[in-house]
Amino acid sequence: MDRDPAAALPLTELAALREAVGSLNRSPGPRVVPGRSIPVPLSVSDSSQRTIALPYRDAEWKLEPADAADWRKAVANLAATTASVVAQIADRLGVQVAESTIAGVPVFEVTPSAVAPQHANRLMVNTHGGGYVFNPGRAGLLEAVVIAARCGIKVVAVDYRMPPDHPYPAAIDDAFAVWQAVVDSRPPGSVGLSGGSAGGGLALATTLRAKRERVPLPAALAIQTPWADLEEVGDSLQTNEWLDNVLVSYRGVPERAARLYANGYDLGDPFLSPLRGDFSGFPPTMLLSGTRDLFLSLTVLVHRKLRRAGVPAELHVVEGASHFHYFLNPFAAESEDVFTEMALFLDRYLVG
Amino acid sequence: MDRDPAAALPLTELAALREAVGSLNRSPGPRVVPGRSIPVPLSVSDSSQRTIALPYRDAEWKLEPADAADWRKAVANLAATTASVVAQIADRLGVQVAESTIAGVPVFEVTPSAVAPQHANRLMVNTHGGGYVFNPGRAGLLEAVVIAARCGIKVVAVDYRMPPDHPYPAAIDDAFAVWQAVVDSRPPGSVGLSGGSAGGGLALATTLRAKRERVPLPAALAIQTPWADLEEVGDSLQTNEWLDNVLVSYRGVPERAARLYANGYDLGDPFLSPLRGDFSGFPPTMLLSGTRDLFLSLTVLVHRKLRRAGVPAELHVVEGASHFHYFLNPFAAESEDVFTEMALFLDRYLVG
Repeated sequence: MDRDPAAALPLTELAALREAVGSLNRSPGPRVVPGRSIPVPLSVSDSSQRTIALPYRDAEWKLEPADAADWRKAVANLAATTASVVAQIADRLGVQVAESTIAGVPVFEVTPSAVAPQHANRLMVNTHGGGYVFNPGRAGLLEAVVIAARCGIKVVAVDYRMPPDHPYPAAIDDAFAVWQAVVDSRPPGSVGLSGGSAGGGLALATTLRAKRERVPLPAALAIQTPWADLEEVGDSLQTNEWLDNVLVSYRGVPERAARLYANGYDLGDPFLSPLRGDFSGFPPTMLLSGTRDLFLSLTVLVHRKLRRAGVPAELHVVEGASHFHYFLNPFAAESEDVFTEMALFLDRYLVG
Repeated sequence: MDRDPAAALPLTELAALREAVGSLNRSPGPRVVPGRSIPVPLSVSDSSQRTIALPYRDAEWKLEPADAADWRKAVANLAATTASVVAQIADRLGVQVAESTIAGVPVFEVTPSAVAPQHANRLMVNTHGGGYVFNPGRAGLLEAVVIAARCGIKVVAVDYRMPPDHPYPAAIDDAFAVWQAVVDSRPPGSVGLSGGSAGGGLALATTLRAKRERVPLPAALAIQTPWADLEEVGDSLQTNEWLDNVLVSYRGVPERAARLYANGYDLGDPFLSPLRGDFSGFPPTMLLSGTRDLFLSLTVLVHRKLRRAGVPAELHVVEGASHFHYFLNPFAAESEDVFTEMALFLDRYLVG
C-alpha cells in the first residue's frame, strides 16, 4: 500500500502546511484539522489492510429512507445480501444453524463444528447489531456464527422485533424474555450474553433490565463497539467521521435509526442509552473496539464507567479497525487475535 | 463549548458534503477525509474540556533545531518552564523531592505526603518522557510526582543522560544501572517500573534488557502512551495528526528526536523500538492512552503483543485525551479516574 502522498511533499510544502494548520490552532477552542488522504496502515496484516482499504458502502451508509415503506425496502435489500455473506462465512467456519423459539421469540441455535470440552454445558446468548432496524432473520447471525466458531461454544441468537413495525420496547422485551427463559432453565453461571453495535447497547440494556427485575445476570458480557448512547455522545463520532469505512458518519443512518427505534421515547432513558445506567453489580465484561471506530469513544466510556463501578471490565482495541471490522473480516490475524481473547475471557468467567 | 458548526449546516450543504466525500472514497485505497473543525467533546468534564481545547504549543511542536547547540538551547528553554510547572504541581499535591544517586546515576526520590500503608516498603522506578531529549533534571519529574501522589507510593525518578551529548545507549544504560541496583537492594516483588512516552519506550526496553541480563524484572509495569517504535509505526500517527494538541504531528520533533537519540544505531533495534522485542515473561502491565493520542496505535499494538505473549496486560483509554493529557492536567476527573486505576493495579501486583 502507498504511504500518504503528503509524506513525500517537498519540505517547503510540509513547512507551509505546518504553518497554516498551526495558525488555525493558536487559540483555545475547536480543533481545526486539514483535509487529508490517510494511507492504509502498514502496522496490520495484509488481510486487515484490504478491509481497511475498502471503499464506503454506498448501499448502506448513504440510505435516507423517507417513510416506513422505504425502511422496509432498505432492510429487505440489505438483508438479502447480508444473509448470503453470513451463510458463506458459516459454511467456511463449519457452523450449523437451526431455527427455534424461546419464550415465544424466534431464535437461531448456532452450533460450532467442535464445542470446546469446557463449554459442553455452556451457552452464549447474542443480540445482533444493525442499528436496531437492520439484519432480521439470518442476516443477524454474523456475530453468533463467528463467536460460536472462534470460542467453541453454542450460541442462541435472538431474532428480536424491530422498527418500523416494532419500535422500542419490542427489542428489549424480546431479548429479556429470551434471557429470562434461558436462565430459568439452566445454571445462570453457565450463560453469557454478547452483542455488537446496537446489539451491544441492547445486551447492556438487557442486563440493566435483568438487574431491575431481579433475574440472574449474565455470568459474562462480551460487548463489541456498543451503541451505548443514542444521543450522539462521544468524541470519536467527530474525530473518526469519514475515517470509519463502515458507519462513515453519525449524521445519516445512525441518527435516523435512533429516532426510528425510540419512536418518541426519551433517547436518554438507560434502556435505550445504557451508558446512562447504573452498572454496579454488572458481571465481568469484555469490550472491543478499533482505532478508526466511530464508536471508539462509546466503547471507552462504557469501559471507564464499568471500572468505576468496580466491574472487572477489560478493553481491547484493534489497530486500524473501523466499526465491526473483526466480524466483517473474521479471518484477518487481528480478528483471530481478539477472538482468541474472547475465548480466554469466556473460559475464565463461564462455569458449570 | 460550541458544537461543530457543520452540524448546523443546512441540509443541502450536509448532503453536498456527504456526496463529495463519498465520491472520493468509492474505490479501495487511502481514506480521503475532508478538512474539519472538530468541537471540544461534551462527553468529558469541564476541566478536561479546557485541556482538550488548548491550542498547539508552538514553543514545542514546531521546534526545528538545526544542530547540537540549537537542541541544547531548546532543551534548556523548555526545561525552565516545565520545571516550574512541575514544582507547582508537586506543591499542590504535597509531594517532596530529594536529590540522590543510585549506581552513579542521578535520581530524585519523590515521596508523597501520605504513603499508603500497603506500599510502606514498596517502590516505583520512573523513566520520564520527553522524546529522549527533553526534560532533564527536575523538568523530568511530572510523572513521578503525579504517580507518587495518586498511588501513595515512593518513586525513584531516573535523570538519565540524553542527546545531543549522550545519545543511545546512554539512557538505557543509566535506567538499567538504576534498575539493577534497586532490585539488588530489596525484594524484586516490591518494585515496579513506570514510564510515559519516550519514558514508556525506555521502561519497556529496560525490561527487555533486564530479561537479557537475567536481572529480576519489575513486579509491575505502568506504561503510558509509549513511544514503543521509533520508525513511524501506527495508524494513529496519521489519523490523530493535527488532532493531538500535544505532539500535533510526527513529522517534526518526534522524527528529529528519534534520529538524534539513535545517533546512527538501527531504529528498529528492540532496545530502541521495544515493540519489536520479545515480551514473553513480562510482568503484569497497565497501558494508558487517549482517543486523540498520536500514540494510541503504539499503545494498542504493545497491548496486543503483550496479550499474545500471555502477559496480563490491561488497556485503559481516556476519552478525548491527547498524548500525556492525564499528566498535564492531573486534576481532571478523567485523570483522577485512571490514576485510581493505577493505584488499584499497583495494589494488585506489588508485594512485600
